[in-house]
Amino acid sequence: MGRQSRRCRFAWVRSSLSEVLADHDLASLGDSYVNFVDSLVVSDRAGKPAGTKVKGSVLAEALRRAGLREFLPSRMSKHALADAAESLIVYAWLEGRISLEESIAIVEKEKDLVAGLSRLLSIAKDRITFP
Amino acid sequence: MGRQSRRCRFAWVRSSLSEVLADHDLASLGDSYVNFVDSLVVSDRAGKPAGTKVKGSVLAEALRRAGLREFLPSRMSKHALADAAESLIVYAWLEGRISLEESIAIVEKEKDLVAGLSRLLSIAKDRITFP
Repeated sequence: MGRQSRRCRFAWVRSSLSEVLADHDLASLGDSYVNFVDSLVVSDRAGKPAGTKVKGSVLAEALRRAGLREFLPSRMSKHALADAAESLIVYAWLEGRISLEESIAIVEKEKDLVAGLSRLLSIAKDRITFP
Repeated sequence: MGRQSRRCRFAWVRSSLSEVLADHDLASLGDSYVNFVDSLVVSDRAGKPAGTKVKGSVLAEALRRAGLREFLPSRMSKHALADAAESLIVYAWLEGRISLEESIAIVEKEKDLVAGLSRLLSIAKDRITFP
């Protein structure tokens, strides 16, 4: 349980992937996490500090490419899909399944942001576990 | 030099506190960092994940309380003061002088966000060094 650190107090364990993807509270924190990760990736590439905001359309497309669309209800807006992506990414981080440094490295390795976030989503999905 | 990690590649060393405070690139990344830290503080307190955006007026007031106003030109907007606060906080993090976990703990310990950020700014100022 060492990896699950003290964040557990607010990242109580969810029971399924669908539950994680549909969690609006997680999406709210995830938005902040994803923007921070992308800001560091952009900073690394630009060779100077920079701040960015990841577009919802980018997150929605990354979710589809990661094969996660099927875990969500059929009619969902792009915004709701982006929320789901943010929820999953930050949940994996909160649960100690992926570090900030690794998140940056994963996104950075791919040729564009959609591919990077798609890879990050796949890894997050593979690593989280449910009771 | 172990603490200065690989972020050095874009966090090139600034030569003075005034230079850090006036750096718009740092402010841009700092905005993302500060929002993420506060989101985690709010999540901890609420007992559930949450995302927040720190107001410029809060950062500007924290900067004043930390006694850092004197390191900046006399006529500056609240927005510019907030930028300066964000720059200093993220610079200390980039330079490995303060961790994300410690940033959260410092802000969390104080009774409100202005006091928390003021304390974080003081610690950041005390720990960074210049050539």
